[in-house]
Amino acid sequence: MGAAKFLRGLVRAAGQPRQSVIVNTGDDEEFYGLHVSPDLDTIVYTLAGASNPATGWGLEGESFNVLGALDRFYGQAWFNLGDRDLATHLFRTERMRAGERLSRITAEIARRYGVRAQVMPMSDDRVRTFVKVRGRGAIPFQEYFVRRRFRGVVERIELRGAARARPLGAALGAIRCSAAVIIAPSNPFVSIGPILALGGMRDALRGARARAAAISPIVGGKAVKGPADKMLRGLGHEASALGVARLYRDVCAVFVLDRADRRAAAAVEKLGMRAVVTDTIMADEARAARLADVVLRALEV
Amino acid sequence: MGAAKFLRGLVRAAGQPRQSVIVNTGDDEEFYGLHVSPDLDTIVYTLAGASNPATGWGLEGESFNVLGALDRFYGQAWFNLGDRDLATHLFRTERMRAGERLSRITAEIARRYGVRAQVMPMSDDRVRTFVKVRGRGAIPFQEYFVRRRFRGVVERIELRGAARARPLGAALGAIRCSAAVIIAPSNPFVSIGPILALGGMRDALRGARARAAAISPIVGGKAVKGPADKMLRGLGHEASALGVARLYRDVCAVFVLDRADRRAAAAVEKLGMRAVVTDTIMADEARAARLADVVLRALEV
Repeated sequence: MGAAKFLRGLVRAAGQPRQSVIVNTGDDEEFYGLHVSPDLDTIVYTLAGASNPATGWGLEGESFNVLGALDRFYGQAWFNLGDRDLATHLFRTERMRAGERLSRITAEIARRYGVRAQVMPMSDDRVRTFVKVRGRGAIPFQEYFVRRRFRGVVERIELRGAARARPLGAALGAIRCSAAVIIAPSNPFVSIGPILALGGMRDALRGARARAAAISPIVGGKAVKGPADKMLRGLGHEASALGVARLYRDVCAVFVLDRADRRAAAAVEKLGMRAVVTDTIMADEARAARLADVVLRALEV
Repeated sequence: MGAAKFLRGLVRAAGQPRQSVIVNTGDDEEFYGLHVSPDLDTIVYTLAGASNPATGWGLEGESFNVLGALDRFYGQAWFNLGDRDLATHLFRTERMRAGERLSRITAEIARRYGVRAQVMPMSDDRVRTFVKVRGRGAIPFQEYFVRRRFRGVVERIELRGAARARPLGAALGAIRCSAAVIIAPSNPFVSIGPILALGGMRDALRGARARAAAISPIVGGKAVKGPADKMLRGLGHEASALGVARLYRDVCAVFVLDRADRRAAAAVEKLGMRAVVTDTIMADEARAARLADVVLRALEV
């Protein structure tokens, strides 16, 4: 997950201040009666230095003994849940059933993993991302992403519950007060989109536009990882850094593109954004920190 | 667990007929939001040949990776839950939350483990066994048994919910129709007691008395395993096979004691029961089968 990598770099580059991380929960799904929050966990595990760099999800050195035994009852699983990862889901689910808010539980999980940054769900209300692929009905995001490996032409994204869901108060507060607001290199429709769709969120970001930057998840016309390019095309946008810049022109004063896309810088500037060209491929943590440093300096932090 | 060992021997000795096994659920406990049924699972795992013979609970060759990771959130656990065992609890809990009855779920678990015997909870209603130890309040059974390792003088057993709980219809039916009814060598207060306490259960057993036998869990004045001898003493009974026989005189025509207690046979007969003296220590499966065979023959099956 590009966002998690970037955040780890950001924490390293920024040092002292306590970062607030607003995380998509539209991908949350229930498996075996457990509430799984893939994006929140990836962020926490990555910031804790405990994530599996090879897969981009889950914990390093993970075992899958419970999942293997669940086959007996449910048949072969299509969503991988490691044993230590399951402990997080058990804790989250138990607390949620006891009536605790996801934001409180997330803060506790981050704390127990030694993460200093304030990791928060975009909302304590449930939003569910569905993907409508040509030729079939809308299916929950994880089913599209993991089970069907994002095959097919995406015709529509449905953010069910987003109209009623309230953004987390602390998230709005962080946007209002932070010296810099950064939209990490991530899928604009299914990772960033659900956050922007919450009532009041886009307005809050517009108010912070002068202090805000976004980093393109598209390099050379392709998603660094995942289906962002296919989604841009399917949803009638240009599958390019410029296509992404257009989506954020009202909320970001700065747009960061990869050197591979340097020729798009002029077009980005024409959108009324400042184009910053740099290396955005985060092959290691040092490069992620360097990218974060470039973004922070562009925002004059 | 003596009962599970005995049942495995019984299935081997009895062959064809499908045994009905009525199991205590007073020990059931919630851990990490999961409904754990230790006695049901021990029976199923043992009948499936999948149990851990060294510990008497859980699955053979089990790992404990989830439990280790739960420490991060809950602190050191006092109740062991293996990874593959957890899959059973996840399945059970998910189904219960969906509104399914424990008896149906248990049948499904047994089936998935390839167990032919009909394993059933004593009731689909919740009964909770509490143990009152001298000098402290009543505590849930698992806390007494596992966490406190059955320390202290037992003053009282409370079977909360037993007055309202209905015995499983299939359990009463099995008692009515089976050629033989056997009370396995098990703790008379916390393993057998909750079953007998259910409304209508003791009457059903009285009606089957002529076809019923009990096997002493006490040999030479000591429990083969667990706190049965301490409980007998604490609750004002004789800590002996005879002391156990007295508890079952109204429901069993036959009482089986170990050779070590052969001198108590006459006193057992005076209670109006037929005393059968044999080896009751089940060092291996063959011995368990031999014991079962002796019991079945005593009941003329």
